Amino acid sequence: MTYLDHAATTPMLPVAVAAYSEALGRVGNPSSLHTAGRRARRSVEEARETIAAATGALPTEVVLSTGGTEGDNLAVKGLYWARRAADPRRTRVVVSAVEHHAVLDAAEWLAAHEGATLDVLPVDADARLHPETLRAALAAHPDEVAVVSVMWANNEVGTVNDVRALADVAHEFGVPLHTDAVQAVGSLPVDFAACGADALSLTGHKLGGPVGVGALLLRRDATCVPLLHGGGQERDVRSGTLDVAGTVALATAVQAAVESAPKRAVDLAALRDDLVARLVGVIPDATLNGVALDAAPVAGGPARLPGNAHLSFPGCEGDSLLMLLDAHEIECSTGSACTAGVARPSHVLVAMGVEEAAARGSLRFSLGHNSTAADVDAAVAAIGPVVERARGALARS
Amino acid sequence: MTYLDHAATTPMLPVAVAAYSEALGRVGNPSSLHTAGRRARRSVEEARETIAAATGALPTEVVLSTGGTEGDNLAVKGLYWARRAADPRRTRVVVSAVEHHAVLDAAEWLAAHEGATLDVLPVDADARLHPETLRAALAAHPDEVAVVSVMWANNEVGTVNDVRALADVAHEFGVPLHTDAVQAVGSLPVDFAACGADALSLTGHKLGGPVGVGALLLRRDATCVPLLHGGGQERDVRSGTLDVAGTVALATAVQAAVESAPKRAVDLAALRDDLVARLVGVIPDATLNGVALDAAPVAGGPARLPGNAHLSFPGCEGDSLLMLLDAHEIECSTGSACTAGVARPSHVLVAMGVEEAAARGSLRFSLGHNSTAADVDAAVAAIGPVVERARGALARS
Repeated sequence: MTYLDHAATTPMLPVAVAAYSEALGRVGNPSSLHTAGRRARRSVEEARETIAAATGALPTEVVLSTGGTEGDNLAVKGLYWARRAADPRRTRVVVSAVEHHAVLDAAEWLAAHEGATLDVLPVDADARLHPETLRAALAAHPDEVAVVSVMWANNEVGTVNDVRALADVAHEFGVPLHTDAVQAVGSLPVDFAACGADALSLTGHKLGGPVGVGALLLRRDATCVPLLHGGGQERDVRSGTLDVAGTVALATAVQAAVESAPKRAVDLAALRDDLVARLVGVIPDATLNGVALDAAPVAGGPARLPGNAHLSFPGCEGDSLLMLLDAHEIECSTGSACTAGVARPSHVLVAMGVEEAAARGSLRFSLGHNSTAADVDAAVAAIGPVVERARGALARS
Repeated sequence: MTYLDHAATTPMLPVAVAAYSEALGRVGNPSSLHTAGRRARRSVEEARETIAAATGALPTEVVLSTGGTEGDNLAVKGLYWARRAADPRRTRVVVSAVEHHAVLDAAEWLAAHEGATLDVLPVDADARLHPETLRAALAAHPDEVAVVSVMWANNEVGTVNDVRALADVAHEFGVPLHTDAVQAVGSLPVDFAACGADALSLTGHKLGGPVGVGALLLRRDATCVPLLHGGGQERDVRSGTLDVAGTVALATAVQAAVESAPKRAVDLAALRDDLVARLVGVIPDATLNGVALDAAPVAGGPARLPGNAHLSFPGCEGDSLLMLLDAHEIECSTGSACTAGVARPSHVLVAMGVEEAAARGSLRFSLGHNSTAADVDAAVAAIGPVVERARGALARS
């Protein structure tokens, strides 16, 4: 099989598997006081330092979690509750229209059940939120916004936001900014201190670590109400027995992914550019969605995730393309894995203004650490007959 | 080292490690539609069926989570929110005084921040909640209780509740009952259908599975508001990318632990009884806390967790005992690992009416699947000099 769905989940790096396996052999709850417990605690704290060093955070800013969904929910709900408690006027939650559902649905729940008002900000045709759009939204209700959440890089079309500029705007109004960076860490230059965000979600399984382990980077001065109460682990922000082996594997993967990111970005962008050019060569009316491949850098890095190729194939249904490609042993997706099978166009493409017909006929190819030129060749070889057959199916329906 | 802290965390079973390692080698997000995704989904669903079969649940009742803390928080908060939404009068949360902090602190947060009234019910000197105590609390406010949460087996002193009788009382009043069964599953006979509970938390790392993976068993007719919103996985009750390898390892561990539980219960109880008798032989004024070792069965099973020995050593500080035993290579705890290092007597012992001096000089020895007679011998050999030294330290202070 040719796996071109790394944005959904990417294989664990061998170094992370090795670190996980080695740590699994040792027992001990990091909250226990005996030798095994203290050794487990040391492993966790060393892992925390590794994650911090690789992401420009302080070790005390690393709140271990179970991944992107928990990090996003904890940040959006926890910062909302904390800010509202400090100032009851602050009941607005501001997000971009292209956030992952872990942010959007958390914000919508706050609006439906916790007295919040939700401001969903428009993005441009590339799916980017402009700082001026954020400034206008904050200026309209300068004393009412509790929290802003804007993703670092979009999971569907790969568009990179200028988080530093957005955080600066939020801070002009004294509002904390959370950024969902699960697609960015290990792919783009991410520095928590430099970016200005107050909270940043990352997860293992998007960068070569295990599923079910992640972190919320959270500034020491950010007050965040916990989602999970209990033993008081993780600064009392996130209770639950710490997963030593998972954390060690996460740290190993974060370090390896971040170290190799600059070279991998160049390699993947070259593969991706070749893939896009050749797919369009075979299907001339196919169009790339999102940022142009030669777009100017954003905040000193690429404007688009290096491994992301998102295209629309007119006259096709995305699900048909996906299944036909799968029959040709090419694995990709129509958009976010989390909403796979949902029979409506992606909210990301809708927000970008992509027409519904084009949105429905779109595919995301996402390359990752073990992608090769042979993967590109395989996708290019398959796309012609697949699109022909998908068009035939739609024309007959 | 002699590890007698299995209640804090127990080593992974070799079969679970093997299942985990084998599953780790395969990539795929169970929400993806391509071959790898569908294969990952099949692995998860087979694991779900295994967990269901081993616990007397239906596969659709298994909501995968990240462990006991998440399961407890999801059940207590989620059932509270759902019941209150259905009937605004239902704002009371009823728990026993000896619950784990994951339940107690979740309930206290609901009281402090979400308009709940908290009823903390007294237990007897063995830490057991009597059905009549629950009935009286519900009868006092028959239309106001949203949810009841009572643990199956206490994590500190090992006392087993009659969950079936408690659930029957809750249902007389139309109130759902959640039970924290993280110490029970794999040690005691637990049958979700037969016990009558509406929700039941279990976790991997207490029964030979991985840390960070667990499940909330949740009846199909129980409405539960999610803590984690997003992709809509797990009946929309718990979003987040499913951890295939962790889930497969969890299922393997649950099945193995449940299958071996009857024989292991006999073996561990014999080791534990020997440990208690010989510790008291060396330290004649040491007292066992909790249920007598020869107590009558509860609900057809042992009245006390088979591996649990919890004793008070008069004239000692528990932390001194723990550290001195650790120096003798015996690893145990003073109570819950989650509150280790907290310088106040356990809320469980206080609720049982144990005097503060005795409570402060208490230790929990918890045996598990790889405990041996040599472990008991080692603890017995160490306890004399350790208690003597701890008494000397306290007398001098």
